[in-house]
Parts: sequence; C-alpha cells; structure tokens
Amino acid sequence: MLRANGGRLKASLLEMGKIGGTAAGGVTRLTLSDADKQARDLFAAWARDAGLSVRVDDLGNQYARLEGSEPSAPPVLLGSHLDTVPAGGKFDGAFGVLTALEVARTLRDAGVRTRRSIEVVNFTNEEGARFEPAMIASGTLAGQFAPDYIYDRRDREGRSFGEELDRIGYRGSAANRPEEIHAYIETHIEQGPVLEAEGLPLAAVEGVLGLEWVNVTFKGLSQHAGPSPMRSRRDAMVAAARAVVALRDLALEYPDPAVVTVGRFQPIPGVINQIPGEVIVGIDMRLPSAQVLDEVGERARGLIQRIATEEKVDALVETIRKVPPTIFDRGLVELIEAEIVAEGLPRKRMTSGAGHDAVYINEIAPTAMLFVRTVGGKSHCETEAINWEDAQQAADVLLRVVMRLAGS
Amino acid sequence: MLRANGGRLKASLLEMGKIGGTAAGGVTRLTLSDADKQARDLFAAWARDAGLSVRVDDLGNQYARLEGSEPSAPPVLLGSHLDTVPAGGKFDGAFGVLTALEVARTLRDAGVRTRRSIEVVNFTNEEGARFEPAMIASGTLAGQFAPDYIYDRRDREGRSFGEELDRIGYRGSAANRPEEIHAYIETHIEQGPVLEAEGLPLAAVEGVLGLEWVNVTFKGLSQHAGPSPMRSRRDAMVAAARAVVALRDLALEYPDPAVVTVGRFQPIPGVINQIPGEVIVGIDMRLPSAQVLDEVGERARGLIQRIATEEKVDALVETIRKVPPTIFDRGLVELIEAEIVAEGLPRKRMTSGAGHDAVYINEIAPTAMLFVRTVGGKSHCETEAINWEDAQQAADVLLRVVMRLAGS
Repeated sequence: MLRANGGRLKASLLEMGKIGGTAAGGVTRLTLSDADKQARDLFAAWARDAGLSVRVDDLGNQYARLEGSEPSAPPVLLGSHLDTVPAGGKFDGAFGVLTALEVARTLRDAGVRTRRSIEVVNFTNEEGARFEPAMIASGTLAGQFAPDYIYDRRDREGRSFGEELDRIGYRGSAANRPEEIHAYIETHIEQGPVLEAEGLPLAAVEGVLGLEWVNVTFKGLSQHAGPSPMRSRRDAMVAAARAVVALRDLALEYPDPAVVTVGRFQPIPGVINQIPGEVIVGIDMRLPSAQVLDEVGERARGLIQRIATEEKVDALVETIRKVPPTIFDRGLVELIEAEIVAEGLPRKRMTSGAGHDAVYINEIAPTAMLFVRTVGGKSHCETEAINWEDAQQAADVLLRVVMRLAGS
Repeated sequence: MLRANGGRLKASLLEMGKIGGTAAGGVTRLTLSDADKQARDLFAAWARDAGLSVRVDDLGNQYARLEGSEPSAPPVLLGSHLDTVPAGGKFDGAFGVLTALEVARTLRDAGVRTRRSIEVVNFTNEEGARFEPAMIASGTLAGQFAPDYIYDRRDREGRSFGEELDRIGYRGSAANRPEEIHAYIETHIEQGPVLEAEGLPLAAVEGVLGLEWVNVTFKGLSQHAGPSPMRSRRDAMVAAARAVVALRDLALEYPDPAVVTVGRFQPIPGVINQIPGEVIVGIDMRLPSAQVLDEVGERARGLIQRIATEEKVDALVETIRKVPPTIFDRGLVELIEAEIVAEGLPRKRMTSGAGHDAVYINEIAPTAMLFVRTVGGKSHCETEAINWEDAQQAADVLLRVVMRLAGS
C-alpha cells in the first residue's frame, strides 16, 4: 500500500516553520508580510520541484496543480493556509498545506496518475490577524465579499490588502480562480484537547459550530472606591462579573461541543480605586445547531438583563457577528472516516469549534476536514505541537482519500 | 454672630475652577502643571490682598498666614489642595483651601485678631494623578518620605517632581515648613452619597478607613474559544469573575462604611475568541479598624484560593499598599460636631472612605476634618458639585471652630 513520506513532511514543516520563526520556537507570519512572501515562494518552489504547475489568483491564493489524466474534470482541492497569528505556531494552516503537498509528491514519486487533477491551495489571510475579517479570500471565492472590499481592508498601520498584495508580488488573475471543484479536503490541527483526551490521532470533521459574537456594555455609576457604601452602588464591574459566571453555567447545561466564552472584559477607567462606570464584555457562543445557537443567544440576553436589573445598571447588547453552523458533505465525511478505520485507527467524528476556509468552500463545493491531534490542545501559541507519528497517519489517510476522489 | 461671606466663597470657587477648566465644566489641574502654577499664583494674590503673608516650603506647599497676637504660639493650620485629577471637578481640594481662605478673610474684614496665627495651606500633589504616590508633600512633612525621593518621582513623560517644581518657580525653603502645629482642620467634599442620602449638609469626620490594595494574578490556560470543551478549561476569566462577585458578597457581611471594590480587571490577551491565560484583578479593601482590615484581607485571600482551586487555576496574591485606619483627635472631632449643632444642624459623625492630607498631618499634630455634602456623591469627575447653602454653613462652622482653636 502506498504511503506518504513522513520524514519529508516533517522536514518540510520544520523548514517552513523557520520562516517568521520566533526565538521561542513559534512563528509570526502575518498575511502579505515579507515572511508570508518567503513562505509562498518556498511553497511554489517545492511544488514546481515536484512537477506541479503553480498559479495565483486575484486574491493571492496559490494553487499547485498535479495534472490528472482527464484535465477537464473538476479537480480535487486540498490545502489550508500559510499565514499565522502573531507568535503563533508551526502547524496551524501549514500542516494542511504541506500534508496536501506531501500527497502530491508521493503520487508523483510513485508515478501514480489520477484521473482528476489535484490542486494544493494556500489561501490568503485565513487568520484575519492582520486584515479583518478572517478567511477573507475563501469567502470571496464563495461570493461572500467583493474583491474591492477585500483590497481596501487595512491593517493597523493603514496599509491596504491590495497594496500589500502588489508589494509582495502576489496579485494574480481572477481567471486563475478554480472553476468547478470536485471536492475540497482540509487537513488541520484540532486546536483543542478532545483527541488527546480520547487517545486518538485523527478524526473526520463533520461540520463547524455555529457562532455568535456579542458585545455587552454594562453602564453603572463610576464612584470613588472609598466613600461609596456597598448598598448604594450601581457597580458595572460586579454586574459584568456575574454575567461571566452565569454564561459559563449556562454553557454547562449543554453537552460538548457547546461552548460559551468571555475573552474580552474591559472596565472603564479600570483603576484599582474607582468603581468603573462602564464595563465592555465580549461573548463568544458556539453551538452545533442553528436552533440551539438561537436558544443560547436568547437565554444569554435574558440572564444579562436580569443581572443588570438586580445590580441597578444598564446593559446594552450588540450582536457583532453571527454565523450559522456548517454541515460538511456527508459522503466525504464517511469516506474520511472509512480511511481512518482502514489505517487501523478507531472511528471518530467530531465538530470543529474553530472556523476554517472549509466553511466558505463548503458553500461552493463538497467539503470535509481531517483533524489531527494537537499536543495539549494548544494552538495560536509558540508551543503549538503535533506528534510526528500522527502526521504520518494523517498524510496516509489523506493520500488514500485523494486517490479515491481523484480516481487512480 | 460673625458669619463668612458665602457669596465671596462661591465667586472664589468659580474663579479658581476656571483655571484648568474643561469644556464640560470640570477641571484638569495636575500638580506642578502650568494650570497649577496659575492656581497657586491666584491663591497667593488673594491671600496677600487679604493681608496674609505667603511662604512656600521645599515641597512646594504654600502657607498663607494671618498673624495672631501671639506670633510664637503654634498656629492653627487649615486647608487642603488645589491640584485635581484629569477631568476632575471644581471642589475636591479647592473647597478646603478656599473655605479656609474665606475664614481668614472674614476674620480680617471683621478686625478680629486671634491669639494664635492662622495658616491656610495648599498641599502639593495630593491626588497623585501625576506623581505617585498621592499626598506626597503632607507625607514628607510627617517624615514618611525623604525629599530626595520626592524630587525624583517622575510623571509618564519622564519629567521629575523636582524639575517641575523649579520650572513653575515653586521650590521654596525647608525653613518655611511649619514648626509645631496647634491643630489641623481640613474641610473637604464627602465624595460619597451618605450625607445626601441622610439629608445632612455637614459631618465631623472622626477618622479614615484603613486600606489594603491587593493585586491578584489568576493564571489558567489560554485556549481558542471554539475547540476547548467547557469541562476541560482552566479559565482565568471565570475564576477572576467569581472572585469579584465573592468579594462583593464578603463586603456586604460588614456594616457601612466597610467597602471592597474591584476597579481593575485585565485579561491577557483580552480578545473575544480566546480564553485568557491570565487575568489581573486589583482589589481595594477599606475597613474602619485594623482588626477588621486584617480579617477581611485574610478572608479575601481564602476565597480567592478556594475559587482558584475549584477552577483549576493559580492565584498569585500581592499586597501593594496597606495603610492602617486613621483616628482623628477626639477633642477636635467633638469641637467640630458641637459647632455643627450650634449652626442648628443635626449632630453627624462619619468616617472618611478616601485618604486626605489630614491622614499624614494627623501623625504630627491634632487633626480632624469637616465634610460637606456632595451632589449625587460624585467626585473625581467633571460634574462634581455642592450646594451653595452647604458651602456657607461649612464656612461658618469652620470659622467658629477656628475662633475657638485660635482664641479670640
């Protein structure tokens, strides 16, 4: 049975990880930065060395194509992204691109010619760490954004996406966008602790949690901490803190993978001896069905207003983002699952808590994902890690999934 | 019976409030700024016009002296401070200085010569908004700080207290510090809602709450909000929020004026889709006795550790400031209270929640304070306000207290 070259995959991941590499072993490779250009150049060079043809579309997405025996048949698309968050890791994104490249290299080395062409994609700006929103380029392929909107996104220094795309020489042609896509498979690190806790290296991903982001501004009365008796206060800090605890307790009423997180908590003025007059709280709710997403959103609003009333403060609730759950193609999920089992591993399906380019591509082509166990569940950090045996198995499973989809 | 000139006091407060005045009716008059120099110059000019002699000590404290018939007798010291916080009000500090000046003006106008001299003081840097710590100049008079330490305090732009004192021309001589002080009386706005709630204009202040400031760093595990199941989290945000609520509930077990406040709450990184790995919480505890201050501090530490254990996070607790309660001179408190009653007002004693220069001066001389009702209990803000009738009564009470103390 054909197997991927795990040693080459490891070497490629480590080599790519040096570009934008940090002293602590992480990677800072913001999209359209000099480091991103170097990473793109390296990916293109490796692809050409493996006999793939490389093209770039008007959004900067790179496609490396291994021509099939039937060039007009819609290709199988594989990949992810090469950009990272600041002080991120070597695997988020790069693992999906380089596992896909390894599959192409393996097929080429073995002289296997598939019927369908195989394209390895590197999507621009998945992270959204430099230009908001995230997944801007796959979203544009899916018709969610207009290119002019994209080109005018600006980073914190005021530089635009379009200028930076030109600066690094990666503005290609709209004609290079993929036409019909037979299937899209994205391999990615799990970014959570579930597979590690269950002792499993791989999972088929059947969808992505729906998401709602809400900002709540609690407005009370700012007073000096000393001369303000406890019973006369209208303390926005206490109200916001009660909301954080109540939201956690609300989430615990639902089974995994339902999650509610408060990551932003901003008191104004935020000094030790002043009761803040205002606290802004950012709430991230992720639920597996549209119905439960609505239900939790409604219950969250209810508890926030109840707490605000009890604490004699006002609460202004604003939805800043709402994305329905993504359900991936059932046939592709079953295929991935079958190949995990064929690898001798336990059957495992799960739902992704994080968004990926696959969410948008799912709107225009049959899509599914393959997750690999993440050490300690840690990602978006410099200590992000995987087990190399898991990487070998992921590449092997992806290889066989691709051979089935592309026809060999 | 001799009465103060309430109209002149009002006019002086409004005139002084124009220096550093903000569009919204507040005042930004940071210590040793150009605005502070103008305020000092105006105070000195008014004092000289009233026949007082003005001197400045090595810390920039100004003293305006109305000579008594027995110049060698220790003087009665009255006053407060003319500096403000950024976007503060017209009354915090200025009310104490200008009420004292009004008393001196009234005595002078009436031709009343007291036995003891009366000195009106404007203390440098009470607020600590520009140079930390607060009440630096009265603290130095009390022997708590060395002048060299004071001169080297720096603001956020790196300018030192000593340089700024020279720049505005207010570095005087150490020989101008007061020698023995017969008594110090500080009139101040309450800065809280108690007098307003009780319908009282004035109170004798018998002491200042003891204070402990504690910073707690909750350290958990920073994870992506999406793929991190609720039950596996070590969420520093939830732990810190539970602590805020528990600390409030702890404070409610004690009668007024006991207060516990969390004003600082700082998650790292503090973004909506990331469980923060660290949250720093600043806790302000103020209690009326040393024993209860220790007790509440101990109980606070206990609940913080219990919550940290339950949430599987670490909590590092650091005391950054601890000041025992201040007990003012009983005889002076009774004298002020008696003159409030003589004014036809209800007897009222209270404990200050906020610190004042009187806390330090209490260490070197018999000291007490007179509080005036604050509209809405609001201070350190542009809408800080008092009732003018209350100001008249405060000046009248202070006038009679001073006549008793100075001998007329």
